[in-house]
Amino acid sequence: MSSVIHVHLLPELAPEEALAGSTTVVIDVLRATTTIVHMLAAGADHVVPCISIEDAKEKGAAIEGAILGGERGGVRIDGFDLGNSPSEYSPDVVGGHTIVFTTTNGTKAMQRCQRAGRILIGAFVNLTAVCRELSGAEQVHLVCAGTAGEVTREDVLLAGAIVDLMGTTSDWQLNDAAQIALDAWRAAQEDLVAVPLVERLQKSRGGRNVLAIGLENDIQIAATLDKFDLVPELDAKTWEIRLR
Amino acid sequence: MSSVIHVHLLPELAPEEALAGSTTVVIDVLRATTTIVHMLAAGADHVVPCISIEDAKEKGAAIEGAILGGERGGVRIDGFDLGNSPSEYSPDVVGGHTIVFTTTNGTKAMQRCQRAGRILIGAFVNLTAVCRELSGAEQVHLVCAGTAGEVTREDVLLAGAIVDLMGTTSDWQLNDAAQIALDAWRAAQEDLVAVPLVERLQKSRGGRNVLAIGLENDIQIAATLDKFDLVPELDAKTWEIRLR
Repeated sequence: MSSVIHVHLLPELAPEEALAGSTTVVIDVLRATTTIVHMLAAGADHVVPCISIEDAKEKGAAIEGAILGGERGGVRIDGFDLGNSPSEYSPDVVGGHTIVFTTTNGTKAMQRCQRAGRILIGAFVNLTAVCRELSGAEQVHLVCAGTAGEVTREDVLLAGAIVDLMGTTSDWQLNDAAQIALDAWRAAQEDLVAVPLVERLQKSRGGRNVLAIGLENDIQIAATLDKFDLVPELDAKTWEIRLR
Repeated sequence: MSSVIHVHLLPELAPEEALAGSTTVVIDVLRATTTIVHMLAAGADHVVPCISIEDAKEKGAAIEGAILGGERGGVRIDGFDLGNSPSEYSPDVVGGHTIVFTTTNGTKAMQRCQRAGRILIGAFVNLTAVCRELSGAEQVHLVCAGTAGEVTREDVLLAGAIVDLMGTTSDWQLNDAAQIALDAWRAAQEDLVAVPLVERLQKSRGGRNVLAIGLENDIQIAATLDKFDLVPELDAKTWEIRLR
């Protein structure tokens, strides 16, 4: 049996039955998955992703030393310690702490994967590490978070980059969305010198939102390939994200 | 104000409010929109698209000389005159007749556009004619039919081809899906000599379905660029498709 990589351009396009038991990667480049990689790289103990603000506050209150992080409409939630910028999660702030985290799109994509065998957290900043982790898997599903039900180019580009890297190591079978993502990534790659990745991300739907709230540095960070050699993984039973 | 081209990779991803009053193109390359272009090119008087088999039978019975056409699971519906192959709709068979037509995905995409100002029927076989028709529009929405809720590459490639052709005539603003479709089309175009369009369509989700029912000739026909210089248009009031 040949291995399969399916890309889902939005969480709602990923059939939950198809994900069951498979290896999934949640992709929300701007910014949830990029930020989660930074949290754990900075020494946070683990991350608890929450759908609602209420849930996050409740869980945060129950955990000793927990830091509340997240956004709505891109900006820090009232009463929360931190927002959704990777740079906020520095070692001195988060080292050893649990982060209770809620974001608009990324957390929903994780929920969609709850029946998966494995749920990995993917971003450009840990691209190669994620691909290495996927190399033994037979059924891989890449789930793009999008923005408010709209397909976003930054997530599709990362999905395409993963498909591209995986393709060199094995004979993978792709669904149409994986082929489209691969095309998008390759078209982008061909003139990365003329138009760097960071500029592409700035022009994407997610990028325009981040620029609009004045956080252009977050895009620069999100566009940094392989900044870290680590893969956060969400445990579907404990609902905690920890480093592999 | 600059003009806008939005691509929707599936009908359910197209917000009906956004489509209201705009110029839309329904895309179901394999095979509904390709076949509709052939019907009218062959001299059919007009086409009545129906969601359900029952509705089609009822409307067919009420129209003098109507021909019932369409498919479920790709194959001709029991009791219907014709299926969904372009070649079935020859001048001697359909000339002067009304075609009452129901297909799985294409008709749903048309329904989604019912509040649009204009609803054009697009296929590779009338690509340039469709683009000419769009050139004056300010708000263009390209609605890909997909297959059973899954994004299909053949529809995305045509959307990308339309965006590509339009881009040379004006300064269009694209949504992320339009940019992705454009990338996919350009990546495909770059080696159309090595891998002709027909082969790409054969490998797409829709193409594999059509091959599975033994209708490879339909794919060959659907991959023929600009076979016709005409644009079918669905009138949202009368719900009839006629040549412009």
